[in-house]
Amino acid sequence: MTDQTTFDIDLQRKIDMKTKPLGALGRMETLAAQIARVQGSLMPKMETCQLTIFAADHGIADAGVSAFPQEVTRQMVLNFLGKGAAANVFARSVEVDLRVVDAGVKGPSFDEPTLLNRRIAPGTLNFLNTPAMTQAQADEALQRGRELGRDGDWDAVAFGEMGIANTSSATMLAHKTIGVELDVLTGRGTGLDDAGLSAKRAVLQKAAERTGDLNASDALVEYGGFEIAMMVGAMQGAAAAKRIVLVDGFIATSAALMASMMEPDARQAMVFAHKSQEQGHASILNALDAAPLLDLDLRLGEGTGALLAWPLLKAAAAMLSDMASFEDAGISGPA
Amino acid sequence: MTDQTTFDIDLQRKIDMKTKPLGALGRMETLAAQIARVQGSLMPKMETCQLTIFAADHGIADAGVSAFPQEVTRQMVLNFLGKGAAANVFARSVEVDLRVVDAGVKGPSFDEPTLLNRRIAPGTLNFLNTPAMTQAQADEALQRGRELGRDGDWDAVAFGEMGIANTSSATMLAHKTIGVELDVLTGRGTGLDDAGLSAKRAVLQKAAERTGDLNASDALVEYGGFEIAMMVGAMQGAAAAKRIVLVDGFIATSAALMASMMEPDARQAMVFAHKSQEQGHASILNALDAAPLLDLDLRLGEGTGALLAWPLLKAAAAMLSDMASFEDAGISGPA
Repeated sequence: MTDQTTFDIDLQRKIDMKTKPLGALGRMETLAAQIARVQGSLMPKMETCQLTIFAADHGIADAGVSAFPQEVTRQMVLNFLGKGAAANVFARSVEVDLRVVDAGVKGPSFDEPTLLNRRIAPGTLNFLNTPAMTQAQADEALQRGRELGRDGDWDAVAFGEMGIANTSSATMLAHKTIGVELDVLTGRGTGLDDAGLSAKRAVLQKAAERTGDLNASDALVEYGGFEIAMMVGAMQGAAAAKRIVLVDGFIATSAALMASMMEPDARQAMVFAHKSQEQGHASILNALDAAPLLDLDLRLGEGTGALLAWPLLKAAAAMLSDMASFEDAGISGPA
Repeated sequence: MTDQTTFDIDLQRKIDMKTKPLGALGRMETLAAQIARVQGSLMPKMETCQLTIFAADHGIADAGVSAFPQEVTRQMVLNFLGKGAAANVFARSVEVDLRVVDAGVKGPSFDEPTLLNRRIAPGTLNFLNTPAMTQAQADEALQRGRELGRDGDWDAVAFGEMGIANTSSATMLAHKTIGVELDVLTGRGTGLDDAGLSAKRAVLQKAAERTGDLNASDALVEYGGFEIAMMVGAMQGAAAAKRIVLVDGFIATSAALMASMMEPDARQAMVFAHKSQEQGHASILNALDAAPLLDLDLRLGEGTGALLAWPLLKAAAAMLSDMASFEDAGISGPA
């Protein structure tokens, strides 16, 4: 038997000997097993988590694909720093550390000491007519992301995003790499009405005609965003560091898809937090063979869904590490 | 306009002015609104929670309806006191207080100072041939439960249970009060195989023939358990004290159904934590018009699902009380 087989047998035996009917903790058991495998330990530790929010702007916003004006990206960065956004409130509530990265917000650099400056450029180009970024910019974003993903000694890391029009970018990344139709993938984002949704679909259809099917790396150059590319790198860096990667909603899952296509080993570190209300999310989750933990009709991004899933990871690891066995507790098994 | 209408309008306005697209926090918004209504405050507080686990034995266990022997109820009470059960581990992980109540475990009283002794009798009678308890016992269990539900000053209270064969009792309570077929309601409990499930169905079918349709109060006498009746009282007491009642899985939801039928006002205080893997749970949730927060294939009881849902309540209230509005944060609305 290989070491991994032996480990898996020991792991399943340990879970089955806990004082509960066989399988009675359902998905908490499979979650605990995944954490144990990533950490290579039957006594996994899951005490600390950090959320990194990547913010950037998108040239495609000029095509009128979002219900909100582009300046909101910048305003929301300041809201994160002022601790007033949903992500801040949830992070405090579940005791997760939060940091914010400027990956390429439109306008000048921020003069904010608590913001991490990793700017690639003040927003991508409009991918309707031209690639969103250069290969060099994509490589730089991936590299800066990898460094951020390896930072610190957190047991789990979560990644969120802020970027007006970034559902358009995420939609294109999935469309070009897994081939799902734009009509299926394209959703209302921050709240487009029917007319807005039709217009967004038409814009993305036109943008899609510029290129054929793409691999993940080329898709990032053609249609990506700086916050998405940086998140791809961060997921890869964190997974390589044997750290659980807690994946948020639609945008983060498109980044997870790119990260897994470029580095298949990264997939096993990923825990999918929630099923977003954004229409295309189910298709991307499906391509990743991912079953998210929560389904709360969220569609905010910022890592909010990942934050709400964090207590489940903590509890799952505690179950494996701390719960008594039938033998420990002197309890009778099934009759 | 009534005061309640004014309150609801102010509440919805406050949620809609938070720095997020309209409705983007999905079920967290409706959860926050429910908490606000129960507390009668637009600044709800949701910081502390206590789980009470009620344990008792069931005469119907003699009919061979459970995969586990009856002594496991008593053994698991000791496991709770020794802090080794799943409920203990999860409670520590999510920072919820935990207490254990002996509502009527078979055998002598425990000599355990940390256990609350509220024993009605050492187990119910076998409801196959006779009512499970007397009216006086049911009244006493409800009354002791009401007192426990009002105890302390927790922002939310959760109730769990331990009692070998109590899925049989919960199944009968639902069958007799809402009329759903036994074949639909009867599940595998702690893990019956197909033959065990058939035998359990036959036992419950026979037990059902003793009586016609029943109201909740009579159903508790005929087919209830002491832990279930006490939980019914506790839910009513907590709801009357304007406290959020966090309802766990199949057994707890059957108690919530009885509590709501006897005191309809109690329903509004209830938050349903999760959809259990136990087959009949969906029917009982449906009768309560309840949409549970989590769906993790749990089927353990003990309040484990309620514990995992607690962080969502805390975060929802914090969203309403602490998150910035568009005006606070100087953020532009939709274009």
